[in-house]
Amino acid sequence: MIKESIEQSFTVTYRYQVHFTEDLFAASNPVLARFFASHASDTVAKALVVVDDGVATHHPELLPQVRAYFAALSGILLVDDLIVVNGGEYAKNDHAVVDKIIAAVDQYGIDRHSYIICIGGGAVLDAVGYASAIAHRGIRHIRIPTTVLSQNDSGIGVKNGINYLGKKNFIGTFSPPFAVFNDFSFLQTLSDRAWRSGISEAVKVALIKDAVFFEWIAAHADALYHRDADAMAYLIYRCAELHLQHIAGADPFEFGSSRPLDFGHWSAHKLEQLSGFNVMHGEAVAIGIALDSMYSHLRGYLSYADAQRVIHLLQALGLPISHTLLHTTASDHPLLIGLEEFREHLGGRLTIMLLQGIGTGVEVHHMDTDHVLAAAAVLQNDFEIQL
Amino acid sequence: MIKESIEQSFTVTYRYQVHFTEDLFAASNPVLARFFASHASDTVAKALVVVDDGVATHHPELLPQVRAYFAALSGILLVDDLIVVNGGEYAKNDHAVVDKIIAAVDQYGIDRHSYIICIGGGAVLDAVGYASAIAHRGIRHIRIPTTVLSQNDSGIGVKNGINYLGKKNFIGTFSPPFAVFNDFSFLQTLSDRAWRSGISEAVKVALIKDAVFFEWIAAHADALYHRDADAMAYLIYRCAELHLQHIAGADPFEFGSSRPLDFGHWSAHKLEQLSGFNVMHGEAVAIGIALDSMYSHLRGYLSYADAQRVIHLLQALGLPISHTLLHTTASDHPLLIGLEEFREHLGGRLTIMLLQGIGTGVEVHHMDTDHVLAAAAVLQNDFEIQL
Repeated sequence: MIKESIEQSFTVTYRYQVHFTEDLFAASNPVLARFFASHASDTVAKALVVVDDGVATHHPELLPQVRAYFAALSGILLVDDLIVVNGGEYAKNDHAVVDKIIAAVDQYGIDRHSYIICIGGGAVLDAVGYASAIAHRGIRHIRIPTTVLSQNDSGIGVKNGINYLGKKNFIGTFSPPFAVFNDFSFLQTLSDRAWRSGISEAVKVALIKDAVFFEWIAAHADALYHRDADAMAYLIYRCAELHLQHIAGADPFEFGSSRPLDFGHWSAHKLEQLSGFNVMHGEAVAIGIALDSMYSHLRGYLSYADAQRVIHLLQALGLPISHTLLHTTASDHPLLIGLEEFREHLGGRLTIMLLQGIGTGVEVHHMDTDHVLAAAAVLQNDFEIQL
Repeated sequence: MIKESIEQSFTVTYRYQVHFTEDLFAASNPVLARFFASHASDTVAKALVVVDDGVATHHPELLPQVRAYFAALSGILLVDDLIVVNGGEYAKNDHAVVDKIIAAVDQYGIDRHSYIICIGGGAVLDAVGYASAIAHRGIRHIRIPTTVLSQNDSGIGVKNGINYLGKKNFIGTFSPPFAVFNDFSFLQTLSDRAWRSGISEAVKVALIKDAVFFEWIAAHADALYHRDADAMAYLIYRCAELHLQHIAGADPFEFGSSRPLDFGHWSAHKLEQLSGFNVMHGEAVAIGIALDSMYSHLRGYLSYADAQRVIHLLQALGLPISHTLLHTTASDHPLLIGLEEFREHLGGRLTIMLLQGIGTGVEVHHMDTDHVLAAAAVLQNDFEIQL
């Protein structure tokens, strides 16, 4: 009567919309109101709103606007306490933000059909998304990313996490958001540095997926550098679209070892950490792209002309392509430890995406230490002067 | 060029096997060796083994057996440190077990393609499963449940979690195990109380899903009470099968409000907590089943004869059907707070499974306080004497 084993098998379907808008909380903007109306039920849902302190400071009108917007909605009850949390990597570097959100879930009786709405940069979204994913085993989480980086990359994807034991994203989950609202208006108050650094993820996805998009970025590098809002809106839209297609197409929760979207990221994660997070994620990714592009050339996958094009584009966008932390030839270079940490984080066999052309990636399972250091030296010696 | 929104949609397929065996770590048992062989890759995977201290104490041969078994395998490297953790609800009541596992993941370089293997009761499995789910965003987790309760219910399902802020399972995730091995030999050393209490989940699933299984349990109540191993093996197998079918069939990650398998559980969760976890989960579920069955009768869903059959079966199995904590008629009874907590944990509209016959559930969205207290009083006054 008893079989030796029972095979369990089921599929779970995830679906969410990524909206593109401006002035999301303006009384005249119907996007969010329509969203809540489409999810109305026979109970009143609660909404807990969490705001990145950087955003709250640059947009003093935001908190009153949020209150006014929700006051006009029916079927949804805004928790009176708008929670403002420390932004930037700080949000991920200790448990304080996560603990605060979980305490609020308890205090305000936020249930699994309520909403935790986070307005902020990628780090705050990651920490609040993680808290939302574990409280009651997952509360509906709405992301309102406010930076270039989070609007085109992390904020629209399926991951969350915090840093732990000194390691980037050591703890986290794969938990798709319930919805994403990209509000371009938030970008206007970004520093030049933050504005530019987010562009590196678009360069990355273009390089491994879409040569046409790469050419578009190259043609609009000057406009992007000088903060042209329309150029940035398209950059974010197309980058988000490519990211979403990638997630839906392959292995959304990364059960395998392949992670093409992490092109340039093995060194970037380590560089961020080694710099005490003085190097922004997007800047570290730009450096990582430059390093892996030059490495791709030195290992014979990519022509010098193409590697040079990548590096010159990064420089034209105002992005760094090297860092003093890379300026050593020691074979025990701390950066190289990042390779093993990256393998451990992914699991299984080391799998690194390189380039074999603009728009075409190639996966390898070994990185040669000497060539990594040689690539770093070329970047330092031949390209260091910014255009 | 920019659309107002992009719809993201994808499915994730989960698949795992639940094995039924005896003496899993005997050198002659090929089940686990075959499993690892079928998942061999071109890298050596690590295995971190975590053992419930209660199991380690009752089975002093286990740890050496585990070492010997892995020593004979190729392609899999046992982490030398076998981690023994405090068992029982303690494992879920603070962060210590979770922190210990995450520290070990860091210390031993356990990656996402390595294994965290947990041998123990439901509480330890829940805590270790949670740690496995969040470290590196999810490490392959193998469950080896050692109690009746975990073999037929929690250990084979898709949930994990820990208690937090005084609330049962306040933090956790939905994360299917990579594989489950139910080893019946572990049941022999259970206390009579632990042996019996696990049966209540089988009574529960029979009551809402399968009248034939209910009749089988009734026919074998005496054998089960007197620890007949074959009867227990079938009980676990059939209960596990019904649970797995339910998970695969409906809403595995409980995005909706309906949770039929939580029949009898709203009061059970609260009773466990109110008793300081002196009432075992399975005992609390037995009391919860009795309470909701009698409530089903008092509200006109279930005949008195059927309610009586349920209660007499629980008693014949040596399970409690009432508790002094229920012996009050106060309308501010702390137990009733459990209803609201249950709703918050599920989210949305209160949804409670009741019975309209043996093997047939019915969902309601309201529980009448007076009738809940009346049902408790009937159990106290008319059934308290154990058969």
